[in-house]
Amino acid sequence: MAAGGPPVLVVTRLDDVTADEVITELNRRRVPVVRLDPGDFPREITLSCTFGGTGPGGTLVTASRTLDVGNVRSVYWRRPTPYTADLALEAQAARWAVEEARYGLGGILAALPDTHYVNHPWRNRDAEYKPAQLATAARCGFTVPPTLITNDSIQARDFITNHGPVIYKPLRETECTDDTGRSLTVWIEDVTPDQIDSRIRHTAHLFQQRVSKTADIRLTAVGDHLTAVRIDGSPGVDWRRHYDALTYSPVPVPPEIANGVRAYLDAFGLVFGAFDFGLAPDGGWHWYECNPNGQWAWFPDHITTPITHAIADQLQHREGSA
Amino acid sequence: MAAGGPPVLVVTRLDDVTADEVITELNRRRVPVVRLDPGDFPREITLSCTFGGTGPGGTLVTASRTLDVGNVRSVYWRRPTPYTADLALEAQAARWAVEEARYGLGGILAALPDTHYVNHPWRNRDAEYKPAQLATAARCGFTVPPTLITNDSIQARDFITNHGPVIYKPLRETECTDDTGRSLTVWIEDVTPDQIDSRIRHTAHLFQQRVSKTADIRLTAVGDHLTAVRIDGSPGVDWRRHYDALTYSPVPVPPEIANGVRAYLDAFGLVFGAFDFGLAPDGGWHWYECNPNGQWAWFPDHITTPITHAIADQLQHREGSA
Repeated sequence: MAAGGPPVLVVTRLDDVTADEVITELNRRRVPVVRLDPGDFPREITLSCTFGGTGPGGTLVTASRTLDVGNVRSVYWRRPTPYTADLALEAQAARWAVEEARYGLGGILAALPDTHYVNHPWRNRDAEYKPAQLATAARCGFTVPPTLITNDSIQARDFITNHGPVIYKPLRETECTDDTGRSLTVWIEDVTPDQIDSRIRHTAHLFQQRVSKTADIRLTAVGDHLTAVRIDGSPGVDWRRHYDALTYSPVPVPPEIANGVRAYLDAFGLVFGAFDFGLAPDGGWHWYECNPNGQWAWFPDHITTPITHAIADQLQHREGSA
Repeated sequence: MAAGGPPVLVVTRLDDVTADEVITELNRRRVPVVRLDPGDFPREITLSCTFGGTGPGGTLVTASRTLDVGNVRSVYWRRPTPYTADLALEAQAARWAVEEARYGLGGILAALPDTHYVNHPWRNRDAEYKPAQLATAARCGFTVPPTLITNDSIQARDFITNHGPVIYKPLRETECTDDTGRSLTVWIEDVTPDQIDSRIRHTAHLFQQRVSKTADIRLTAVGDHLTAVRIDGSPGVDWRRHYDALTYSPVPVPPEIANGVRAYLDAFGLVFGAFDFGLAPDGGWHWYECNPNGQWAWFPDHITTPITHAIADQLQHREGSA
């Protein structure tokens, strides 16, 4: 029932059910919350921020709230919309305005004094690079499937032949649409040598040995609070395509995996991470990837609630804060 | 006369006289060098990089050289050109190809194993945010001039009135051109309250009290090797506008400034930094900014040569490397 104190700043877009879960819990605890979407700047946000002997100080004023930037308890960095400019500006001025907003407001939001970030946006960005994920995972002792990144058709065919079955994974989720404007997703799929042609030359492509698995595992880490869920029922490689068919069972985290997770989070300076593994027939956990800003609110309540509480604990008590 | 060993990777564009100075010195020391511009990918670079139990391994093949990515001594990160796509690709495919290249090749270049970065590109990027510079500089004990970042005309006018004389500084160097395509630079200039109108609403703007100075100081830090140069002869606020009129005199670095520089580099994980100060009549050094990838080769030889040697030392001997 303790109330008040400095607010938690939640940086996200309007529609974010994952952030909503955490905000509801913080409200229940009577911890003040300010929600902000930097994409609303400058239209709906007035920024006035000072530096000097200390800093930053000053305020961010939204339609409904005033945030004292020198007095933020913690930051929950979720899914802000991109910076945009007033439509009335001509192209060059608009580009200028967006960059000034990104480096101005974006820089301030990343440099709040004495604040606990879950996660810091720059640490998220570093941890989104799959090559850095793979290199760090190997260094942290995880079992990483043989992986090739290449723009060379001969190397790609050789790898698929020698390490098959092999899957293709995009290195980055870039928004794509079909002719009718409908959003397209590039799924993780099996690939064969005959599918490789000279077009591979156009950019970098990631190929990975497909793990021979009996189930998938999603491990959600919030500091030292680890929630591992076994995911059964996916008929294909990419369980995100088959949500309706999935079942979820909590499973214990082997000590060597817990140690690896801690080392991995430390290496990137993360508090939160959504780790994906394939569970091999011998019980081994095979590394897929770690999404530093992954979703978790779609789980059944008995799994989601402890994660919500762990994140609220971090934000309320600044656990793990220096 | 010692020769060979793993190469230094210099990441930069074709025309970079600053990198040329360092490469010439490394050649003189017979340290192998591979020069690479990621902007040449995929046109002139073949990438084949593997991960698994360890990683990354594999090769980057340019027109003239083959780089073993698992065996790079150190990286000198300078001024690569942006990633581009084959002109034959339609817009959406081109955007996709560029992002895959950025996250693929860019991720690999940022995750080279056991390599000493001068500087790591992600640390450069963090350190380019002026609000983070200002907040960190204050925390490291530097004298930071009163500064305001705002999109509010009333706050801007009040600040200029209360702290004048005040200068306007761009938060980011965005490339702009005039009607004829000629490149434009936004200079640092004095600003008065009557110059502020409602257009300030369009984005974030940085205003800073103009330091009452007798000269400027550029301090170039390469690890613990500090080179401070007093710059006289600038008739205006921004000495970059008046190169022909300037004179340079090496000056000693006060111990509290040296301590601040070390703390600042550590805070951002930098090895190199180009720090700008204003020298006040009382001898005090007033913080302007730190460019994590600033130029230094335009100085006279007697100043440039020790900086060149210090960078070559870092790259050859991996000084400061973990």
